[in-house]
Amino acid sequence: MAVQLEAPSLLHPVAGVELATAATASRYQGRDDLLLISLCEGSTVAGVFTQNRYCAAPVIVAKQNMQEADTRALLVNAGNANAGTGSLGLANAQASCQAVAASLNLEPQQILPFSTGVIGEQLDMDKLKTGIEMLPSRLESANWLQAANAIITTDTVAKGFSEVVHIDGHAITITGIAKGSGMICPNMATMLAYVTTDASIDRELLQDLVSRANQMSFNRITVDGDTSTNDALIVAATGQTELAPLESGSVQAEQFYAALENVLVHLATSIIRDGEGATKFVKVVVASAAANSDARAIAYSVAHSPLVKTALYACDPNWGRILAAVGKAEVAHLDLQKVDIRINDLDLIVDGEPAADYAEALGKAEFEKAEIEITIDLNLGAHQHYLWFSDLSHDYVSINADYRS
Amino acid sequence: MAVQLEAPSLLHPVAGVELATAATASRYQGRDDLLLISLCEGSTVAGVFTQNRYCAAPVIVAKQNMQEADTRALLVNAGNANAGTGSLGLANAQASCQAVAASLNLEPQQILPFSTGVIGEQLDMDKLKTGIEMLPSRLESANWLQAANAIITTDTVAKGFSEVVHIDGHAITITGIAKGSGMICPNMATMLAYVTTDASIDRELLQDLVSRANQMSFNRITVDGDTSTNDALIVAATGQTELAPLESGSVQAEQFYAALENVLVHLATSIIRDGEGATKFVKVVVASAAANSDARAIAYSVAHSPLVKTALYACDPNWGRILAAVGKAEVAHLDLQKVDIRINDLDLIVDGEPAADYAEALGKAEFEKAEIEITIDLNLGAHQHYLWFSDLSHDYVSINADYRS
Repeated sequence: MAVQLEAPSLLHPVAGVELATAATASRYQGRDDLLLISLCEGSTVAGVFTQNRYCAAPVIVAKQNMQEADTRALLVNAGNANAGTGSLGLANAQASCQAVAASLNLEPQQILPFSTGVIGEQLDMDKLKTGIEMLPSRLESANWLQAANAIITTDTVAKGFSEVVHIDGHAITITGIAKGSGMICPNMATMLAYVTTDASIDRELLQDLVSRANQMSFNRITVDGDTSTNDALIVAATGQTELAPLESGSVQAEQFYAALENVLVHLATSIIRDGEGATKFVKVVVASAAANSDARAIAYSVAHSPLVKTALYACDPNWGRILAAVGKAEVAHLDLQKVDIRINDLDLIVDGEPAADYAEALGKAEFEKAEIEITIDLNLGAHQHYLWFSDLSHDYVSINADYRS
Repeated sequence: MAVQLEAPSLLHPVAGVELATAATASRYQGRDDLLLISLCEGSTVAGVFTQNRYCAAPVIVAKQNMQEADTRALLVNAGNANAGTGSLGLANAQASCQAVAASLNLEPQQILPFSTGVIGEQLDMDKLKTGIEMLPSRLESANWLQAANAIITTDTVAKGFSEVVHIDGHAITITGIAKGSGMICPNMATMLAYVTTDASIDRELLQDLVSRANQMSFNRITVDGDTSTNDALIVAATGQTELAPLESGSVQAEQFYAALENVLVHLATSIIRDGEGATKFVKVVVASAAANSDARAIAYSVAHSPLVKTALYACDPNWGRILAAVGKAEVAHLDLQKVDIRINDLDLIVDGEPAADYAEALGKAEFEKAEIEITIDLNLGAHQHYLWFSDLSHDYVSINADYRS
């Protein structure tokens, strides 16, 4: 069902990174649902996490451990989010780190735990610990595709992207995987994404680069407006190349940033292409706004409108719903007589009036495309914002009405 | 499909009010789609209108005409919203008023026009004017049920409510009708509602009472978070009783207010019971908040969450989605360790921890009910807010993917 998205066929290994997967048979049968990512000594790690106030137990532990020690391993389980699980959930997340630390001869604080799946159920610690014991002997640098498959839940396609960028003659690899399909409206990060590189980058600079790139990627997607309790994006730099450590503000850092942003945009838009029940991949661009907050508000109002989303699903050029979604947004500056609205290159509204040469058949042809760009030009100022989102289909309801049963 | 809602069987006539309906065969065949409500001389009229910036042409004209003259008639057409129709749409709304005025020997400014239906298409003025000519000879005080049926669009059940309240020994009648099922997230008012009374109330007091009651009724419902371009609530007082004119702040005015609020709550909740595809009628109550804005934000976050709404549809006690919706709300004050969450009388979260005696079977029994109350007690302060909303079903998608085709 995913919109023009195929599972990755090749993800480049990153020097200093090894991966292992295992099946715990906790929720899913016949597939791996546990992932360990091991980072070599000297790696730096940066991350952004969900802003949901009910952030999950593993998110709390991961944020704390990142502050207390140098991260050496990430543990991810799929099927159970360990969120809304109170003090027992917190203890279980810590126990997971202890189990991994014991098996790798590390300190528990060097492990970051992550969980994704159903909220409000406790982890089955016996099954989890049995799975953890299987992992160390399976660690391989070539296991990225298995890793991408082990972390998915309602995703229909595994998600990953690899890029090699040449900086000062050195080939720098950036490889990342992500999972996510529903409960997607990141506020700082989205479900789970793990990206590594062999570049050498100190922690502070890495965090700056990740935060910037996150704003251009995961913070610009929405499936259903629901922000997950477990969102996390983690980027690790192993420093296993000959390229000198990146310096803030340098040409090299900006070259690396551009490649990192590209990887994150690929991963983030993969989540929308595989949005629950998605049949359309849509970008909404709000241009020429008087303030960035206005552009954002209108973009989210359109992207979250169930009526716009069902019209897109139906390939119905019912553009009045776009107009209504623009009008309901809470914005400081809007002059209806200046607004232009286009779908792809077709004018719908020009200077606030229905476009003179619009015809239903022309609209229909645009709405039938699998990839659609909606442009709302406010003609008021210099600010713009864009988002990627998916439509609302029968399958979205089926997936979410049936997910637990 | 409506949740425990039947069409009204009796709506009391209101002295000074006559109604007529006709079929224009514009969009719908074989049913009336045009309504005229005539008010006797001396009536006062108050209203609240959509806050959507793209308010429809008839809304613009109605607001203007209310300021310029004493309203004597309301004209409503169903099937075409006359919204997003630019200057031609505005001219058509004015021409409708002229046609009604000519047929009733009134000034055009004494007519308020209203439209509901598809956005972005022009009215068929020939058919509309033919319909308008049929109306005056059909005016009757007993036509309330026909009126309720003539204004519906995707509604499956006509909506109306009548109440007789005794004030100082005088029987005062309040009768109202409403339409609405989708694009429901009123901000000042909802789709269309017309309420009349034979009480005598000056315009300023009437507006005060209507604005207050609107905050307790139409401004507390949401089906899909989409605010219509055409929302309007109009209340007319004909003064055709012996009861003295109501005075602001008097006991009599408060008695009338209580009855008016009751009528508006009945009409507003009827819209939710008949929400597009609704299988559940849900009230979310956010109690003990530190600020009213916090309570509102959390209530809307829950009521607009597609994941909460699909879980309700599935009768799935997946309460983690409620928790995630609470956590993503942008609020100033939230202490997770103090939060209690209940569904009906069943505890889900107590003091921020999963309730000790919760069991899946108990949750399932509550989620299977057709009427559900979700209580989120923040235990922080004295503010509360509540909303009524509906679930998200396959039929919601079908209705909105097929509405125009």
